[in-house]
Amino acid sequence: MGLKQQLLFQKEAFILENGATLQPVEIGYETYGQLNADKSNAILLLHALTGTAHAAKHHEADTPGWWDDYIGPGKALDTDRFFVICPNVFGGCSGSTGPSSINPKTGIPYRLSFPGFSVKDIVRVQYELIKTLHISKLKAVIGGSMGGMQATEWAICYSDHVNSVINIASPLAASPDAIGFNLIQRMAILNDPDFNDGNYIAQPEGGLATARMVGMMTYRTSELFSKRFERFTVAESSKSAFQKSISRSNPIYNTKAIVLLNVLMRTATFI
Amino acid sequence: MGLKQQLLFQKEAFILENGATLQPVEIGYETYGQLNADKSNAILLLHALTGTAHAAKHHEADTPGWWDDYIGPGKALDTDRFFVICPNVFGGCSGSTGPSSINPKTGIPYRLSFPGFSVKDIVRVQYELIKTLHISKLKAVIGGSMGGMQATEWAICYSDHVNSVINIASPLAASPDAIGFNLIQRMAILNDPDFNDGNYIAQPEGGLATARMVGMMTYRTSELFSKRFERFTVAESSKSAFQKSISRSNPIYNTKAIVLLNVLMRTATFI
Repeated sequence: MGLKQQLLFQKEAFILENGATLQPVEIGYETYGQLNADKSNAILLLHALTGTAHAAKHHEADTPGWWDDYIGPGKALDTDRFFVICPNVFGGCSGSTGPSSINPKTGIPYRLSFPGFSVKDIVRVQYELIKTLHISKLKAVIGGSMGGMQATEWAICYSDHVNSVINIASPLAASPDAIGFNLIQRMAILNDPDFNDGNYIAQPEGGLATARMVGMMTYRTSELFSKRFERFTVAESSKSAFQKSISRSNPIYNTKAIVLLNVLMRTATFI
Repeated sequence: MGLKQQLLFQKEAFILENGATLQPVEIGYETYGQLNADKSNAILLLHALTGTAHAAKHHEADTPGWWDDYIGPGKALDTDRFFVICPNVFGGCSGSTGPSSINPKTGIPYRLSFPGFSVKDIVRVQYELIKTLHISKLKAVIGGSMGGMQATEWAICYSDHVNSVINIASPLAASPDAIGFNLIQRMAILNDPDFNDGNYIAQPEGGLATARMVGMMTYRTSELFSKRFERFTVAESSKSAFQKSISRSNPIYNTKAIVLLNVLMRTATFI
């Protein structure tokens, strides 16, 4: 039950796509259900950007996972039939080696000295984990968003070791606008004084919040956004917006003035 | 030539939409061409979020304006025929009263004590300026983006004082996603340590840069973005992205891993 950890690359270093090396690499993972005798019922489940290995509760009192609705007896990923393995991504810092891990060469955390890595590197580490579990062929690899990108990499790099790949809502390449919005998210975190060039003690909450807001904005179309979050009247909107306002300077002010404009509502309400 | 300034609301205070009062209010503006005898050739030109009153050069050696291509003899806004007035918005801090102005009651800048304002407030101040210039009817009010919102307010609030309104690329109400992205821009600035709760000395450059990036991202559709900024091969992309990388921590790392994924390119290039 709970988080398991496996040391990998103990004899030979892990060579990343960019040429950097790490030794050893630890991977954290959680499992649901039982591996059958011929090891043919394993499903590799891959989390999205902010996820962890904790995909579902292991018992009633357990912390909720990110996919409780789909993992369990009789559910889509039926734990009476399948053995579900959910690893924390390489670099993920929640049980897997990442920037917050101790560098064995220096005795202090890697922080900004941790090498950059690719989705292919993440998948390579997962493949090594599957090997140590003596599973030669996965029933399926399933992931959404960044997890879906990993699932696709499995189909390309380890097609002999997977029966099917389920890529949920992720592309074959990041689009130019996704690249732009991702850069903005990194900028928001890097600019937070608490980030302290990576040597942070407290989390850079403000930067993380801004970055998360950017992420959330890009998960919906403008049309769906309008449908879900349509406004009330300008009178109410102005009042509460001004009363609750914590932002007080220009262009702080001007963007707020833009937001308050709703001529359509005003004509409907006041004229 | 250059910036002119006019004091308004000297006898009676300016009452903002939200009930706050200011007295007096100064408005900075620049003009191009000559007002004719019957004062019938005046065009009010309104700038966008980051603009100023300097819409065009007044002479060859002058600093470029934001609409040099459209203002001048024989151009769209023909200064041989029209008298073009371009005010800095109320709250704009570039010649007009705003958060950086001295509060006459305290002798120190308003900063965060400056009241929140609306597009309607901005237009009210412009109307007072037009009155002091003894212009009873404008030939046209023209603006783009936030300037277009102001032009629309002119059509609603002062329809007797304007012959035509040209609203370029601005909506009748901010959409929910525009509101979200505007909030993110304010957050990015508010989180910058140099913002210092509005009492900044140095500009909060990092926050402003992030905010501007968010703005720039929202000015194009995803399709146009892809067309303009399509990527080169993954091999080149990874190399330069990693070499130039200044961002080193997670989710800093993970968003970068997402950005580097281009399975389409890889299959085309390497297989």
